[in-house]
Amino acid sequence: MPLVTDPQVLRDIATRIRILSVESTSAANSGHPTTCSSIAEVLSVLFFNTMRYTTSSPKDPSSDRFVLSKGHAAPALYAAWVENGLVQEKDLLKLRQLGCDLEGHPTPRLNFVDVGTGSLGQGLAIAAGMGYAVKNYDKIDARVYCLIGDGESAEGSIWESIAFISHYNLDNVTLIIDVNRLGQSEPTTLGHNLNLYKARLEAFGWNAIVVDGHNVEALVKAFDVAATTKNKPTALIAKTYKGRDFPGIEDKENWHGKALGKETERVLGHLRGLLKNQGQLKYTIPKPLTVAPQVNITNIQLSSPPNYKLGEALATRQSYGTALVKIAQSNPRVIALDGDMKNSTFSEQLKKYDASRYIECFIAEQNLVGAAIGAACRDRVVAFVSTFAAFLTRAFDQIRMGAISQTNVNFVGSHCGVSIGEDGASQMALEDIGMFRSIPGSTVFYPADAVSCERAVELAANSPGICYIRVNRPPTKVVYANNHQFQIGKANVLLSSNNDQVLFIGGGVTLQEGLAAAAQLAQQKVNVRVLDPFTVKPIDQQAIIKNARECGGRILVVEDHYPEGGLGEAVLSAVAEERDIYVRKVAVPKVPRSGTTAGVLDYYGLSAKHIVNYLLEVLKK
Amino acid sequence: MPLVTDPQVLRDIATRIRILSVESTSAANSGHPTTCSSIAEVLSVLFFNTMRYTTSSPKDPSSDRFVLSKGHAAPALYAAWVENGLVQEKDLLKLRQLGCDLEGHPTPRLNFVDVGTGSLGQGLAIAAGMGYAVKNYDKIDARVYCLIGDGESAEGSIWESIAFISHYNLDNVTLIIDVNRLGQSEPTTLGHNLNLYKARLEAFGWNAIVVDGHNVEALVKAFDVAATTKNKPTALIAKTYKGRDFPGIEDKENWHGKALGKETERVLGHLRGLLKNQGQLKYTIPKPLTVAPQVNITNIQLSSPPNYKLGEALATRQSYGTALVKIAQSNPRVIALDGDMKNSTFSEQLKKYDASRYIECFIAEQNLVGAAIGAACRDRVVAFVSTFAAFLTRAFDQIRMGAISQTNVNFVGSHCGVSIGEDGASQMALEDIGMFRSIPGSTVFYPADAVSCERAVELAANSPGICYIRVNRPPTKVVYANNHQFQIGKANVLLSSNNDQVLFIGGGVTLQEGLAAAAQLAQQKVNVRVLDPFTVKPIDQQAIIKNARECGGRILVVEDHYPEGGLGEAVLSAVAEERDIYVRKVAVPKVPRSGTTAGVLDYYGLSAKHIVNYLLEVLKK
Repeated sequence: MPLVTDPQVLRDIATRIRILSVESTSAANSGHPTTCSSIAEVLSVLFFNTMRYTTSSPKDPSSDRFVLSKGHAAPALYAAWVENGLVQEKDLLKLRQLGCDLEGHPTPRLNFVDVGTGSLGQGLAIAAGMGYAVKNYDKIDARVYCLIGDGESAEGSIWESIAFISHYNLDNVTLIIDVNRLGQSEPTTLGHNLNLYKARLEAFGWNAIVVDGHNVEALVKAFDVAATTKNKPTALIAKTYKGRDFPGIEDKENWHGKALGKETERVLGHLRGLLKNQGQLKYTIPKPLTVAPQVNITNIQLSSPPNYKLGEALATRQSYGTALVKIAQSNPRVIALDGDMKNSTFSEQLKKYDASRYIECFIAEQNLVGAAIGAACRDRVVAFVSTFAAFLTRAFDQIRMGAISQTNVNFVGSHCGVSIGEDGASQMALEDIGMFRSIPGSTVFYPADAVSCERAVELAANSPGICYIRVNRPPTKVVYANNHQFQIGKANVLLSSNNDQVLFIGGGVTLQEGLAAAAQLAQQKVNVRVLDPFTVKPIDQQAIIKNARECGGRILVVEDHYPEGGLGEAVLSAVAEERDIYVRKVAVPKVPRSGTTAGVLDYYGLSAKHIVNYLLEVLKK
Repeated sequence: MPLVTDPQVLRDIATRIRILSVESTSAANSGHPTTCSSIAEVLSVLFFNTMRYTTSSPKDPSSDRFVLSKGHAAPALYAAWVENGLVQEKDLLKLRQLGCDLEGHPTPRLNFVDVGTGSLGQGLAIAAGMGYAVKNYDKIDARVYCLIGDGESAEGSIWESIAFISHYNLDNVTLIIDVNRLGQSEPTTLGHNLNLYKARLEAFGWNAIVVDGHNVEALVKAFDVAATTKNKPTALIAKTYKGRDFPGIEDKENWHGKALGKETERVLGHLRGLLKNQGQLKYTIPKPLTVAPQVNITNIQLSSPPNYKLGEALATRQSYGTALVKIAQSNPRVIALDGDMKNSTFSEQLKKYDASRYIECFIAEQNLVGAAIGAACRDRVVAFVSTFAAFLTRAFDQIRMGAISQTNVNFVGSHCGVSIGEDGASQMALEDIGMFRSIPGSTVFYPADAVSCERAVELAANSPGICYIRVNRPPTKVVYANNHQFQIGKANVLLSSNNDQVLFIGGGVTLQEGLAAAAQLAQQKVNVRVLDPFTVKPIDQQAIIKNARECGGRILVVEDHYPEGGLGEAVLSAVAEERDIYVRKVAVPKVPRSGTTAGVLDYYGLSAKHIVNYLLEVLKK
């Protein structure tokens, strides 16, 4: 899009963005006005000349997208939406106040924000996922703009996304690097050496343009080059100054993250003096070129019910692959992403069924997660992300921010626990349940068998918030009938009698070991009740308390996880306010070793043999 | 180091590495023989021509270091140590068996391994830290070699380290990229396009050499160029083939992570036929050029005791800075690393005291953590890593692997909880205690005031394993006398009477709110006992149970953390096996908002006002 708005108007809007940024942060007495100032012209040109969108419908899927990866410049973004009329100026003066959605960093509580930002280096993965979905699923002409800081470009996640975007030729994605030279506590490593950024981007397959980030005409032209450059993405390397047009502050250190305080009025006076036009400004916001298709991602179902035999043994990771294809058969917007583990996680089943709906993200888990969150924005797809559960820890920050972003992405972690055996500790997820439980609003599934795993996938596809499904590497026996009805937060009692003395709770492999232990003890006339929580979060508090009481207030929890944050502590939280319930918790106590599955399960005390002994001890309590 | 060993001997050693890799993985019936094969010549040249080390003393600090970042090639590394005589061949045939330290991926259970690898993309940060410490602290001529896979180079963490190493001109670090073209489930994005790797490395400031990775003379020469190139690091981009010299398997897909099975004998026959020399081979392993200084990193003490007034208010992050300088004054090997947050975490205090002992890692938390672990290897330094606690989630995988690596690195996370106020959810750590509790062998400190924070820093400096200190942004009042003696795992009762009815447990800000609430209730003749756990892990189980019993079996825990994995669940685990203890747990229930510190504490129910109400409810239980 070439120049459609008078450049002086664009300059004045940039100045007004600066004024509002200063006013709002000074009113809040905190925030990052100098960070806002360096990007004022970029925002002015994007929002009032280049981007195609509809102010009244800020999340219209047909529109161009903007991701402010450097989230601490939030007031500048808010100011742009004040200028175009969506946000009221008086609200911006409540910046950072409790109850005001114009928070310190952007979140989707605001109707013009797709994702939460503020943990640096994450926005470009979001843009990558948006660009991929727009190009390959919506197949429309919408463009995605992502603005990052120069200090932020040190984050490795940025380079994962840079590689991903060029590998998939996402020419609808434009990156803008705000090279203002100054980090929080000292200058960046590259300073204003713009050609170094250019060389790095070019080596990663990008078209890279060095541009004066305070020159609106140059920006318009560069964005036009970006829009017309095909088969490779374009980056604008914008030379800017932190605190631009703040006399005495511009380009100076020690002004990061500080409201201007007693300098406020002096700076505002200078800025107001720069305005050439007063009152209502005349600008053109181009309309979207194409219309995004309507999509329906509700009520997703398995195309056929689970079809297993009781007692049949197979790995839940395998039934994940089966279920993924089944929901993909029933809804064309189901997609999967993986980090070069598809032949271990069985996500390759979807690639075999419909290669267009599988996104290979290679060994780059942070971009993997971010791209999924980006693709799922504006409810365009239902995304499943899989890899070894241990490697999802690589993206904990992205997952954490995913909750702030109100994402509905589903995660599947395979190769959990010591039960993977020979590969050893580095590949064993033993903290994954704890990690996903700590995500606000999350649902954590821990299917015991193939039937429950298929239903977990189906439920996850339809559940809001982040869902996590923990799947096993070794086979587990089918314990549910194919027609069993599962619910989130509803436990199932797999074994019970009128005379149970202990309630056993396990998950996946340990549930199976517990069933074997209970069978052994039954021969000694010791009755054990076995409960499968199905979801660790929310956990079925009512069922646990009721069944525990019926078992003399005795619970044994055995889990293939470290002792902290997992199933055991979920059970403890459920019974915290109950007096008279005894809980024995068994978990993996230290960094484990390689060995066979059966060998390590036994060595770390998780096998049926050990569970028999724990149960005999617990029933004396 | 030019050629010192007959090249045919180097070729034969490479073949013997292949033979041992095949034999051991076939004996284990699992593992990655094709991955081993592509690096056989690189290992042969490094271990039998180029690297300076002493076989009998594999962790001699004077020696060159080798980091196998692509840890799944472990059998090839083990085979090199069989060849040089440290490891017995018969032990290698027990690969991956329970009890054998030759595990699926390398760990420091082996005396020739510095760090655990197997989660890809982490080794180069380790090498960066080693190289930095060798060059700047030990000031010796030892070199550091790090071997990564080509698929692995997609990890952003690699690019963080590449930038770090060139920024600090660590010319003693040599990176080798094993470009074998094949990932786990499909070819890599760049295939054998070696010049693309070269261009990327050069753009990041490296000297990059494309080399035939199966030609021992070419490798010797390239390593010599690396050793003699000053002021910039060198990377060898080695063109290799996966499954090299395995006829019918070399360069073929679908052979990742598979023992050769029925192909074993055929391949071994071919490999044995390649050997030109039989029996004992004659080689030269060069000795280290310089001797590393002896260092003492034990019994580190604050140079002067805490010096505060009771009731004085200051942020624990500030006392972290004070304590860091004090222990640095008493021991020259204390260092600090930060990710451009030093003016917020107060680690800049050390930079001001002694700039040489502060390492700025910029906004790249994965390399920050990895470099600290690398620097601390072989007990060369005591390292403290600080940033916002929320951003430590970015390096969860590195921290997880740090436990496998038996690291003693200390972490300090500032800006925890909603109490940071205005910046909003993206900057609030609300899952950090859960994350660090789930690390095996970790110690988690949660100091309530300046005195306890200084002692936490001192204790952490001397404690094995990973230590985490959670520090607050807002000021908290000094509640301990300057001469108070603190112990890990020992709680302190801050308020008690003969007639306490509820035990209150809090941490940091909520402990202070609890004290205020208890003071209010005391006026109503309701006595509350207040306990400061000091360490959340290990938690003082004995004190909690004893004090809870003395308070009618009633506990209230209030924490500035999400409900999962934090202080509340630590307390629940401590009392799990006690009947007749009621626990009420209050935490931040959802993604929080921006606001003032007092405002958000109150909004999320963590303020003294709310705690009064909880206490009144709990004492009815």
